[in-house]
Order: sequence, then structure tokens, then C-alpha cells
Amino acid sequence: MRHTIFGESHGPAIGVVLEGAPAGLELDLDRIARELARRATGKNPWSTARKEADQVQVLSGVFEGKTTGDPLALLIFNEDQHSRDYEALRFTPRPSHGDYAGFLKSGGCLDYRGGGHFSGRLTAPLVAAGSVAKQLLERRGVWVGAHISAIYGISDAGLEDPEDLRAVAEKDFPVLDDAKGEEMKAAILEAKGEGDSVGGSIECVVTGFPAGLGSPDFGRNVEGLFAQYLFAVPAVKGVDFGAGVALALMRGSEANDPFEVRDGRIVTRTNHAGGVNGGITNGMPVVFEVTMRPTASIARPQESVDLRTGEPVELSIHGRHDPCVVPRAVPVIEAAAALASCTLLGI
Amino acid sequence: MRHTIFGESHGPAIGVVLEGAPAGLELDLDRIARELARRATGKNPWSTARKEADQVQVLSGVFEGKTTGDPLALLIFNEDQHSRDYEALRFTPRPSHGDYAGFLKSGGCLDYRGGGHFSGRLTAPLVAAGSVAKQLLERRGVWVGAHISAIYGISDAGLEDPEDLRAVAEKDFPVLDDAKGEEMKAAILEAKGEGDSVGGSIECVVTGFPAGLGSPDFGRNVEGLFAQYLFAVPAVKGVDFGAGVALALMRGSEANDPFEVRDGRIVTRTNHAGGVNGGITNGMPVVFEVTMRPTASIARPQESVDLRTGEPVELSIHGRHDPCVVPRAVPVIEAAAALASCTLLGI
Amino acid sequence: MRHTIFGESHGPAIGVVLEGAPAGLELDLDRIARELARRATGKNPWSTARKEADQVQVLSGVFEGKTTGDPLALLIFNEDQHSRDYEALRFTPRPSHGDYAGFLKSGGCLDYRGGGHFSGRLTAPLVAAGSVAKQLLERRGVWVGAHISAIYGISDAGLEDPEDLRAVAEKDFPVLDDAKGEEMKAAILEAKGEGDSVGGSIECVVTGFPAGLGSPDFGRNVEGLFAQYLFAVPAVKGVDFGAGVALALMRGSEANDPFEVRDGRIVTRTNHAGGVNGGITNGMPVVFEVTMRPTASIARPQESVDLRTGEPVELSIHGRHDPCVVPRAVPVIEAAAALASCTLLGI
Amino acid sequence: MRHTIFGESHGPAIGVVLEGAPAGLELDLDRIARELARRATGKNPWSTARKEADQVQVLSGVFEGKTTGDPLALLIFNEDQHSRDYEALRFTPRPSHGDYAGFLKSGGCLDYRGGGHFSGRLTAPLVAAGSVAKQLLERRGVWVGAHISAIYGISDAGLEDPEDLRAVAEKDFPVLDDAKGEEMKAAILEAKGEGDSVGGSIECVVTGFPAGLGSPDFGRNVEGLFAQYLFAVPAVKGVDFGAGVALALMRGSEANDPFEVRDGRIVTRTNHAGGVNGGITNGMPVVFEVTMRPTASIARPQESVDLRTGEPVELSIHGRHDPCVVPRAVPVIEAAAALASCTLLGI
Repeated sequence: MRHTIFGESHGPAIGVVLEGAPAGLELDLDRIARELARRATGKNPWSTARKEADQVQVLSGVFEGKTTGDPLALLIFNEDQHSRDYEALRFTPRPSHGDYAGFLKSGGCLDYRGGGHFSGRLTAPLVAAGSVAKQLLERRGVWVGAHISAIYGISDAGLEDPEDLRAVAEKDFPVLDDAKGEEMKAAILEAKGEGDSVGGSIECVVTGFPAGLGSPDFGRNVEGLFAQYLFAVPAVKGVDFGAGVALALMRGSEANDPFEVRDGRIVTRTNHAGGVNGGITNGMPVVFEVTMRPTASIARPQESVDLRTGEPVELSIHGRHDPCVVPRAVPVIEAAAALASCTLLGI
Repeated sequence: MRHTIFGESHGPAIGVVLEGAPAGLELDLDRIARELARRATGKNPWSTARKEADQVQVLSGVFEGKTTGDPLALLIFNEDQHSRDYEALRFTPRPSHGDYAGFLKSGGCLDYRGGGHFSGRLTAPLVAAGSVAKQLLERRGVWVGAHISAIYGISDAGLEDPEDLRAVAEKDFPVLDDAKGEEMKAAILEAKGEGDSVGGSIECVVTGFPAGLGSPDFGRNVEGLFAQYLFAVPAVKGVDFGAGVALALMRGSEANDPFEVRDGRIVTRTNHAGGVNGGITNGMPVVFEVTMRPTASIARPQESVDLRTGEPVELSIHGRHDPCVVPRAVPVIEAAAALASCTLLGI
Repeated sequence: MRHTIFGESHGPAIGVVLEGAPAGLELDLDRIARELARRATGKNPWSTARKEADQVQVLSGVFEGKTTGDPLALLIFNEDQHSRDYEALRFTPRPSHGDYAGFLKSGGCLDYRGGGHFSGRLTAPLVAAGSVAKQLLERRGVWVGAHISAIYGISDAGLEDPEDLRAVAEKDFPVLDDAKGEEMKAAILEAKGEGDSVGGSIECVVTGFPAGLGSPDFGRNVEGLFAQYLFAVPAVKGVDFGAGVALALMRGSEANDPFEVRDGRIVTRTNHAGGVNGGITNGMPVVFEVTMRPTASIARPQESVDLRTGEPVELSIHGRHDPCVVPRAVPVIEAAAALASCTLLGI
Repeated sequence: MRHTIFGESHGPAIGVVLEGAPAGLELDLDRIARELARRATGKNPWSTARKEADQVQVLSGVFEGKTTGDPLALLIFNEDQHSRDYEALRFTPRPSHGDYAGFLKSGGCLDYRGGGHFSGRLTAPLVAAGSVAKQLLERRGVWVGAHISAIYGISDAGLEDPEDLRAVAEKDFPVLDDAKGEEMKAAILEAKGEGDSVGGSIECVVTGFPAGLGSPDFGRNVEGLFAQYLFAVPAVKGVDFGAGVALALMRGSEANDPFEVRDGRIVTRTNHAGGVNGGITNGMPVVFEVTMRPTASIARPQESVDLRTGEPVELSIHGRHDPCVVPRAVPVIEAAAALASCTLLGI
């Protein structure tokens, strides 16, 4: 299954085409809508006030409610656009956005309004595609869940049992420990109040893979496959499996996961490897954490340059932006992981 | 350019085929040999006593000293094999190795001797391929360097100027600050003395990319591309760009890289983004850090399971192993980064 | 550049997404419309009476009239559907259509109305994509033209000069020799009158390639690349380069193309190789002929089987169908060739 | 499974790496040797006098006689090279060879000796890879066979039953009708006597595919997939499925394959579609014919050009060449078809 996302923040529509999705899936459009609602904007103080309807239309690939196996095209029309907000940014790249890199890549022809094709808005079709992927995975007993693992240094409780993530998915603010969640919200709102933003991280778990998927080789190894999907999510700057960066601080005797037999199955007692050895699944949950940078759009004045003259410009970004993208990114990371999981399973 | 690595630790030979390498490169075989010497074993107390000759033979793709553009096949014959060491491991998977995952993937048909195709030995052809890639990159003004950034919690000095990495490449123990290097060595030897191993991290920098390479889209974005190559290196469990995991602790006003004009060029004052915005190069050095887990092979007794009976087995791994793979992995990470860089440049 | 076509004949819309199209092309929508008009239906007695508006909407990838380099999505809404015509065909596969193969592939979930995703209607977005490709090619001096080379055994005049195809593109019935065209039309109408259809062939030429593109290797060779695009056009059953099947009747001394210098350039006197030697362009026009089977939909009674019961069924296909797809397929073959040409040039 | 062929006619070795071959196949090396013997040279008057030992060495991917699922590398060392024969050709491209196209592609750096990487000799590793593919296919009940369908206008008997091809594979001159074979040999020897060569065609059949494999879409359709493998065989200039070019001469009522039930299975009475409808297998044998041009190397004087001066050169090709490649190409076409079949089956 291959997904192709198209569209710009301020164009007529955004969407995704899924090629190679298997036939015969009774597509649950309500589930797609619910997943989209999880990343929806404008519903609480820690996300942008911009409203997105995100009504998904199926253009092809579904007949009498079931997938046909032919390309599945999903479309979302754009609304609520304030394109005038962006005119001032045409030749003044916002720091740490794709504006400058995109300007050079496109020879100056990029759609600069609202980030254009770089916009976080493009994660809506990704979530829609991911919801299709999740529905396909569940038929194979594979399940994807995630939670905010930290925001601005405030960590969620450690994940003991992947099943705990099922309840998290229902929450407005997807953490295991709601008290920690309140602290995180306070940190977000404090930053917002100062015209600033904060970063954080998301932990994601995929359960139900059989052991033996993947390869040590380039192009087929599990970590590399997931990373390719995850880094395509805006704001993701790091991907770490299992114990992650802490492995650099460990000895082998700590980091190694001893084998044992539990309920008649060979398992590892710990899962520092994040379910992957030698690039291949070992039957334990695949676990990874992504680092998400602080929202690049901040109200505080920043230094930029006029691309025409090279003159320094003091830039203040108006418009409506998330002071922290992490809460809304939880279903997006799940979507990317779900698409990667389909590829790994040969779906 | 596409590389395909083949071979097993205890088979007759290992090698790599490079398809799509451009014609007309005067191939410097001495440089390949020097790169291989950087990852060579047996030369000092912190690496394995196993000796590998690593003599590269060119089988195809070079004529009268120059690449022809046809597939370039490089072969290294295996020597100094102690295959008997491994017989006991046939049905007893070593914790945190690919043994168990590979056993299931292959239906029990894997070459279990010395890790087979999973062996770190397979990084030799990767380094050879990477050396070809580096030679191609230099014609385009692109340069790759790396250093040990930390071992077991002991950090190298921060990298101020990528140029400083040129001297590091010449060192036996590739760090910026040799005093820190001595501390690292001591930590490695201490672990070794206790039959244990340690993990660490490597920072890598690629300079000379023009701005505008890559894409925000899946399959073409810079971070995803590099990650795919890096996670195919054994023991790599995390890949983090720019300020990396620290971005989760930052505010936007800290993390954002302000634009300025320096020497007539638009640059960013800081490089927390690691040279990539929106999945596209921004003209600053591409910087990332990989986390490498501690060597899984340790002399200390470990718990495993007999795959035939499910009975617990206490396993002691004999043989000759690196107590820390990080020092020898520096040229390997450079090689992976060089191959990724070629792909990014369309070489 | 990678194209993904989606949609079904009787669904809400059909379309195409072009990923990787270069930025900065001033997209000529009128040219797209003109190309679509060349394959339009209902305008003369030798094509189906079904009318297709084929109004293309740009959903993304174009800003201020120029391509941005981001995915370019083109949409065509469906109209004039007589879906009831098809109900009888649900479990009765039409001979030599994709119905039966598609039924098994989809586990019975295919959209059987009007051929669904198998419909010739899906060549409309292909022609739209091909028009974008042609516009990109022309900036590189590459030009694609085609003509009907034969219908039901009646051959067009031989092509002396590729330039002659420019005038052919303007014709309602795209042949070099209009007298031959009249004979072809008569053959089509005669078959139509008998509730039958006829096959034919199209010759296509691409001029302007530099010598040296492609490779003898699998996955990169010129003929294989073109064939992959051409066989994805419905009804194409054969692809033959240069002198084509006649090469089987030749001696080497006839078939070989002698080199000579003309106007200071090395050329071949003849072009029996169709511009490709060893899988690589040799600087001569790339020439090939595709064989197109007769339209599978015919009014005459045919034998089929009820997929539920296995009982024989006499099938009569009503509805509106082309008695010969060859005339309308000329711009479709050009489109496929244009997309292949972009890939070959690395566009 | 992905194959990568490397090597040059006069280099140290040629070979192939097969990535993604499934584990657990008991690899029959004798069968590989037998397949290679079918394309071997020097054994009769209608093939070149050049002798090739073609001893295959397994470098990796096989352990204790079974495939491991890791990359399978097969090597054949080169012998019996008369490199001096070629010095005169360095700057004088042989008509209809890859010399000129390859010279430009490589910027003059190609290995011009004996065709280098363009040499028909590179079909030896292809046959070896194809033999592995055939062994994998047979476990799935899929079988590949072929015969010479015509040489220089002399046609073999029509193929009634694919099973008849089993006996053909054992023959020195692989035709159904040996009397026709004698006529073909006479035509070859007559051409050889006149310093010339002849072309021909090969018909190939793959039996045992289930219905429902493939797709109408670009990149997944059956004809396009096979064509990509087949055109990578040197000298193949045309690929035609089922009734092939004759479809252009047919009416729909003749060309359509009526459905019927035979032995409880839905089949088509005829197989003009060559087992493929709408780009998908329909359960009938996949049948196609390839056109092979006459050997480009002929003893008769030919016109060429000195690449340095542009002066005309009269070229006489000495050395040892097949006056017709068709007989030896039969196992090569089978090999290409076997590799394509593995891809189609997802092996």
C-alpha cells in the first residue's frame, strides 16, 4: 500500500490516494471522522483557534461500502482560510519553517500561504489514510497506540502495559497520568501567554506483530521503515526505538533483554530493544519515541531576511497557531506508524 | 546509486554491488583501504582481537582505473574464522542479537555462525561503498565527518566547526577532546574487564549541500532518507537531527534558527534544525546524532531459552567481541551518511 | 515524476496525482483541454455516443499559474452515467474484459459498473498527466507524436519524417494518409454495423533525446521503461521497437544501422533499432509501435458464465462503445510515452 | 526478490545478487548448471566457438544447502578471453551494438572489450538467477517453458499444449517440430557462411498462476511487469502477449475469448489474451512472444565512424560470434520470465 498526499493549506482541497489497499474491507467512515476529530483544531485553549471542518469525501476505491482494491482517493475541501494573513511572508522566510528551503527548491514558485504544502494541515489526509491502515491492521491483530510522553520537560507516567493506551486515545489530552497532563497544559499556556511555543515527545507502541518481519538489510529493516514514515510528519526531529537515547548510557548487561518462556511463548523479560533485533521484529511490541520540535510559528519578534534585498527584517507572525503541536500530533504519529506497519506486513 | 550488501561472517566472502554509480570517477582504492583500516579490528585493547584482512577486490564496474557507470562489485574474502565457537549457539539465541528474530524469519535456516548476515562484519563492504560515495561527493563539494559524541555518559567536546572533524578522522580514537577520549577508553576497558560492554553515540555532519534538496513528502524527505540508511547500521537504535532530543525541552524562541546574511549568503545563526527545514536542506550543515546500543555479545552469563525445548539456558558468549562498537562505527556512520547524501543529490 | 491515477467510470470523480513534477512550469490548462478533446467521445460516428465533459480541475501543486514542485492533483468529475446498463453484468463477466480477473482479485468487491477502475475512461487523467509531461519535455527539446499505423489490416503511409506527425495531431482521424484513413473508417463502420469491433496499431515517435540515456540493466533500460508505461494503457497487447517484429525476418546486414556523420553529428543511416542500442538512447528518434486489441465490448452475442452458478450465459453487451479504440488512443499512447520520457530524463 | 547483475565480458568475474529470496529452499546447484549448459557456447556449429566454463560459485545466502533468506550472491569467473581482438573497436562503434550509446553514457569510460557489461555473456548470471526463481516457482505450482517460434521466417509448429515444452527444454535445438528446426539451422548456417546473422522469435508460456494477480495500474500490471524483465535481455526488441500483433488484424468477435466451464473451473475457450485481462491474470497460461534482432556482430564489412575524428571507417568484426542468438536465448527468456513471475507472486 502506497500513500500519496497532495494539497496546500490555502488551496481548494487536500487529500490522499492509497494505492494497493486490499479489497473487501468494510470501510468505517465514522472511524476516519473520529480520528480526524482527535487532531481537530479550535476546540480548546492549547490548540489553534482556526477551525477545520475536515469532512472526508471518498472519490474512488470503495463500492457498496467496501474497498475494491483499486486506488482509494480521499478528499477534504479547505475552508476558513485567511489568506491575507500571509502576504507579508512572501519574501520573508519564517525561521525554522520550510519557507526558505522551499523557496529555493521551487525557484520562488511555492505557495507561501499558510505554509502551503508544508502546512501541518496536510496531516489531516495522513490521519485519514492512517485510519484506513488501522482498520486493515486490526484484521491482522495489529494495534497502534500512542501518548504524549513529555512536553517541555514534564514527563508522562511510564507505560507499563500497551493496553493502557486504549483509554488514552479517548482523552482530549492524551496522557496516561492526567495530573501530569495538567502540568503540561499549564506549560503550554504559559508559553502561549508569552507569545512562545514548546516542544515535546510522543511514545508510540505497535502490538501484535509476529516475530520475523523485516531484515537487517537497507530498505527492509524495521527501524528504517518506521523512521521513513515518522520523519515525514512535520516537526519530528528524532526517532528512537526501545530504551532510545538511554541505551548510550547503558552497559550490555543492563540493555540486553533476557529470553524467557511466558504462557508457552518465548518472550523477552524487558523490551529495551523496542521489539526489534537485527532489523527484524522479535514478537515484542514495537516501541519508539519521536521528538517534536516546538512550533516554529511564534508571536514573538524574530529575525529574518528579505529574500529580495538581503536586508534584515524583524518578523512577527500573526495568525492562529498551536503553541504546542504535540497533543494534536498523537493521532498523526499513530497514523504514520499504522502505514509503516501495513508496509511491514506486506499489506 | 543503489547498494546491495551480501555475505555472511563465516561464508567464503562478503561484498557489495553499487548500481548507478556515475562513470568517470578515478577510483582511489587506497582510500577505500584507509577507510577500512579505520574500522579494522585487532589493533588495540578496546576492539576485538579478531583480525580481518579486508582486502577489497574490484570485480566489475572499473576499467583502466575509472568507473564505467556499470554495476561496481567489490569483494572481500573472509579469513580467520573460528566457526566452532558458534556451534553451541545454534538453538540458543543470544539476547539482543538478531539470532531469535532471524531464526523465525528464516524458518530455522539462518547461518548462525558469528551472526551470519547480521554480523557487524558486514559493515566492511558498507564502508567500502561509503568510500566510493565520499569520492563522488567530493567532486560536488560535499564532505562527511563524524566523531564519537559520547560513550557511557562521557561526552566529547561540542563541535564548533565541522572542519575540526578532518583531524578527528586521522585519530585512532576519533574524538575532538583526547582527554575525554581517555576517559571513554577507561570506561570501555572497565566494562571489558567485567565481561561487559557499553553504549554510546556518534555525531555526524555533512557539509556542502545546496539549499533546496529533499521534500516534505514521504519517501523524499531528508531526515527520513538519512534515517533509512543509518538504521541499517547494526546497533543503531536512534537518529536525532540538529538539537535532537533537546528540542523537546525547548521553547520555539530558543529552538528557532534566526536568519541572517553572512558573507553575502543567507544563513541561520544557530543550527538547531540540523540543516533541514520542512524535510528540505536549508544550506546549513546537515547534523545528526545516532545512538548505538552496547555490544550485545558479553562474556557475563545471560538468560536464554533452548528453541527446541523451551527450557531456560544460561548462556556465556565466548569468542572475541568489541566491548564497545562506537569507536569502530564512526567510519560506518560516515559511510551510511555518504550513501544517503548521494541519493539526496541524485547521484 | 510519479503519476497515480484513481477513480472509476461511474464513481463521483476520476483524477491523477503527479508527484515530483518540477517547479516553475507555467501550466497551460488549455493545452490539457485540447489533448483531452483529442480523446473525447461522442463527436463522430466511429466513437461511442457517450459524452464526457472532461473538465479538469487543479486541486493542488499550482500557484499563480506555475507548478510549485509539490504534488499536482488533477480532478475530473464524472457525468452522463447510465449505471443501470450494467446491473446485468454483475455476475456475468464480459469476455476479454477485466471483469472476471478483477472479480477474483477483489474477492467480488469490484465496481462492475462501466468497467469501474478498468474503464477506458481512466485514460482521461492519463492524457491530462501526459499533457503536463509534454509541457515539461518541450522545455528540454523533446517532442512526442503518434499516428494510427494500421486498423484491421489497412496500413497508414510509412513515416518518413517525425515532423509530419505535428499536422497529424490536428486531425480528427490521426493518420498521415487521409485516403487510407477513409478506408480505415469504412472498416470500423462496417464492423460497427455488424455489432463488432476491430483492432489496430499506433506508431509513436519521441524526438530530441540526447544519446546516452538509459542502461542495459533491468529497471533502467529504455525499452523496458517505455513498455511499462505503454502496457498500462488498456487494450495494448504488444510493444515493438524500431523495425519491430520485422527484425525476426531480417539478417544482421539488413537490420544493422550504419553510422555516418550528417551535419556534423554522428547518426545512423537507418533506424531499425528505434533509437535504442543496448538499452540506451543513441540519439536517433525513439520509435515504437503498439498493438491494440479490438474493443472487447461488442453487441454480438457472446458466451459467458454465471459466476454464482457456473451456468453458461449468452451475453449481449448493450451500452455505448467504441467500435475501435485506436483513433481515440493516439493521444493516450502519446501521454504514456511522454510520462516515460520524463522518467528517462530524470524529470 | 530483486536481482542485480554485475560484471563485464572481459573482467575478472560476472555474477548476480538475489535479494529477498525466501529462506528454506533446498538449492539445486545441478539444475543451475544444467540451465547454464542450455545457453552454453561452443558446442555446435550454430553458436560461437568461444568456450565459457560458467562454473557458478555460491558466495552467500545458502547455509547447509538451503537458502537463508539473506542476499544470495552467485559468481562466475571469466576465462578464455581474447581481449586483444577488441582494441581496434575502442573508438569505432559497431553498428547496432551498445558501443556508441555506452560511449556517450559513460563519457568514454566504458569497458569496450567484448561488449563489456553489454555483452550477451551477462545472460549467464541471469540464467543462474532464473534457475533459482524456477525452483521457487515450482513450489507454488508455477512452470515456465519456451521454444524457438521462428527464425528468419521459418516458423516452428504451433503450441497446442504447454506440457509439450517440457520435452523441448531437453533438446539441443529447442523447437517443437524438429524438421522445422533443421530448416532453421540451415538458414543460420547459410547466413554464417555469408558472414551474416539472422533474427527470430521465442514463444514463452507460464502456467499455474492463479487468476487475480496484477492490476490495471501502472507499475503493477502483468504485461508491463513481464516486459520490464524481457526487454532487459539483450537483442529483445518486441514483446507481444497472446495473439500478439495479429490482434491488430482481428475483429472483437474473433479476438474475444469466450468463457466456459471445464472440469469445474471457469476457463476461456481460446487464449488470445495470453492469460491477462485488464492487466490481471485470468487463470489461463500467460503466453507471450519476444522478437530478437539478428546478431549485431557480423563478419561482413560495415560502415562506422571514428569517434575521435568523425571520419568514416569500414569495420570488419572478427572474433567469435553467434550467427543467431535465438537458440541460446531460449533459457534466457525463461529466466527473465521466471524472475517476473516471482515478482508477480510476491516472492
